Amino acid sequence: MIAESVRKLEPYVPGEQPRGEDVVKLNTNENPYPPSPKCAEALAGFDLDRLRKYPDPVFTDLRKALARLNKTVEERIFVGNGSDEILALAAKAFVEDDGSIGSLDPSYSLYKTIAAIRNVPWTGVERGCACGSAGRKGSRGAPAAEAGAGFAIPECSLFLWTNPNAPTGEFAEPEAIAAAAKRFKGVLLVDEAYADFARGNCMALAAARGNRNIIVMRTFSKSYSLAGLRVGYCVGPEPLIEALYKIKDSYNVDALAQTLALAAAKDQRWMKANAAKIRRTRKAFSKALESRGWDVIPSESNFVFARPPCAGSPARAAETVFRNLKERNIFVRYFNGPKTCDRLRITIGTDGDMARLLAALDDISACQAGQATNKANNKNR
Amino acid sequence: MIAESVRKLEPYVPGEQPRGEDVVKLNTNENPYPPSPKCAEALAGFDLDRLRKYPDPVFTDLRKALARLNKTVEERIFVGNGSDEILALAAKAFVEDDGSIGSLDPSYSLYKTIAAIRNVPWTGVERGCACGSAGRKGSRGAPAAEAGAGFAIPECSLFLWTNPNAPTGEFAEPEAIAAAAKRFKGVLLVDEAYADFARGNCMALAAARGNRNIIVMRTFSKSYSLAGLRVGYCVGPEPLIEALYKIKDSYNVDALAQTLALAAAKDQRWMKANAAKIRRTRKAFSKALESRGWDVIPSESNFVFARPPCAGSPARAAETVFRNLKERNIFVRYFNGPKTCDRLRITIGTDGDMARLLAALDDISACQAGQATNKANNKNR
Repeated sequence: MIAESVRKLEPYVPGEQPRGEDVVKLNTNENPYPPSPKCAEALAGFDLDRLRKYPDPVFTDLRKALARLNKTVEERIFVGNGSDEILALAAKAFVEDDGSIGSLDPSYSLYKTIAAIRNVPWTGVERGCACGSAGRKGSRGAPAAEAGAGFAIPECSLFLWTNPNAPTGEFAEPEAIAAAAKRFKGVLLVDEAYADFARGNCMALAAARGNRNIIVMRTFSKSYSLAGLRVGYCVGPEPLIEALYKIKDSYNVDALAQTLALAAAKDQRWMKANAAKIRRTRKAFSKALESRGWDVIPSESNFVFARPPCAGSPARAAETVFRNLKERNIFVRYFNGPKTCDRLRITIGTDGDMARLLAALDDISACQAGQATNKANNKNR
Repeated sequence: MIAESVRKLEPYVPGEQPRGEDVVKLNTNENPYPPSPKCAEALAGFDLDRLRKYPDPVFTDLRKALARLNKTVEERIFVGNGSDEILALAAKAFVEDDGSIGSLDPSYSLYKTIAAIRNVPWTGVERGCACGSAGRKGSRGAPAAEAGAGFAIPECSLFLWTNPNAPTGEFAEPEAIAAAAKRFKGVLLVDEAYADFARGNCMALAAARGNRNIIVMRTFSKSYSLAGLRVGYCVGPEPLIEALYKIKDSYNVDALAQTLALAAAKDQRWMKANAAKIRRTRKAFSKALESRGWDVIPSESNFVFARPPCAGSPARAAETVFRNLKERNIFVRYFNGPKTCDRLRITIGTDGDMARLLAALDDISACQAGQATNKANNKNR
């Protein structure tokens, strides 16, 4: 009774959501600062009786505000129950049953699961340093630089390009993405979940009149501090956006989510101030890690992807630090794959969160040094 | 770039959500009474800062409450972003690419769209009077009664059985559904959106240990007055429920929705009192319509499906009443299909709403009588 592709499916495992106080949670790229006070006002002023009725199926007010914000028209905007829903709908709308889905590799590991749910093949592709500082020479596991021509998107129906990328934090210049899109026959969905922490973005490409195949996706989960609300949106050519409307659930975004997202969208100043704080903390924290011998990929996101110093196996070193931190109630993310297992993805929290993490790292090193000394002493005995 | 099945798709058109005051809205089966005061408390007490973090991906507290409420275990409960999401996931989880989806006909017209989105054939089947009062002898468009053996679900991967049915309001006895499920090889999803207004339900079948293929689905949209919140859930055999978890979006139900649905679920008394009021109004309103010459299918739901009296074409009569009501800011639902076009689906509102509707109907009849007299007079001149 269960479809074969679903039986075989390895489900995506989201980062832990530990309960309890006194946890430093740096594992799911949440924002350490609260949502805009305008959201608090909107929540306090929300008339519960509105919930009796179905929500606006096409989120008119929110869509108008997002169109203004992104210098485009309502017809080019789609809103989803989190970006996750948009990804699932895109996998349906733009991929035939015998089509395929591609993404960078490493990238957001959910993409692979989305292809599996859609029951089509997934292709991962490494990306070189075609766009300046995005690649890192000499980094372990970093791809080889490409000569001249720039990055070519592999043939597929839908390519999901996270920019800045996760878990690496690397940024690709919009010009490089535009050039790649031009040579690509399928739909290019640029997942800009982290764009508000970066030095640029592709929104102008998505909003451009001549745009044929670029969709840019944003979320309220990161920079707007509203991960719990589940609102994502995307901007793209009208025929593609229209296709998403055709296959969405009738009322996919609830009335409270529409109201609070609208309030958040209208308070750009709040969002930008928090994003600026996070960028400052990111810079200081990256330096602090490097001074402790970590290799940190320059990040344009609200996290860093960093390799701890180690004498032996780098993968074991990263996993050990991950476990040791968890024992101290500090949660970071460890991805157990061949291209990611030597690093940890650490969300940028408050300066206080990062100080606690650094103190814990120092404590862990001291313990390990102690153990090493003990071992050496035991051997010498 | 757009998948062929999506290009060809006729999207589902939900009932209008007219804005503005002084509208009598009886077109989308919303509850006329407000949500539980416990929801108001939960909303007022909600700490906005919780939205910074992702919601519980498996809605632990809500699931526990729903398990208790339905005398089953958490492992048998799945929660969706409205029942709509559960339907879309079921169409994926229980239907192979060469499978099919069935439902009663007439029934919730979204089912056909769901099959089209899933790109599999849809089969509609009329249902006879196998279970007592569910069928109506002599009703125009009503199916022929079946002899003895009871209703057989047609061969398909997934059969969606709304009970009470929409738009008819007819109720099938759980025994009849259990018997049909036993002979059926696929998954039977009983959509009990309206069960709280009915004289029985199939929840015990879904929760039963030996249950192999019955899923019962409920929603907070109707009896709990929370259509704007988007929370539906279902109960079924663990392997089937597990399959839904595997393919859902990581965080499909937002933190506010989880919190308010939990508050509503805990206040059964409020929900039941409102459902009882609606049943009383339904009875009185059905009588009032019948006394005006309407044919009313006995309803076990929060709406009635009724045929206006007419001299000429019944389809034109229904549509004319629909339009005349709309001009008076009273919204009911008209379904333009061969099996539904002679009737209107009218949601049960407050007694005041129904009185206003009846007054409008009387006014419309008076106008039409006047016009007919004028016409006759003109002819005679």
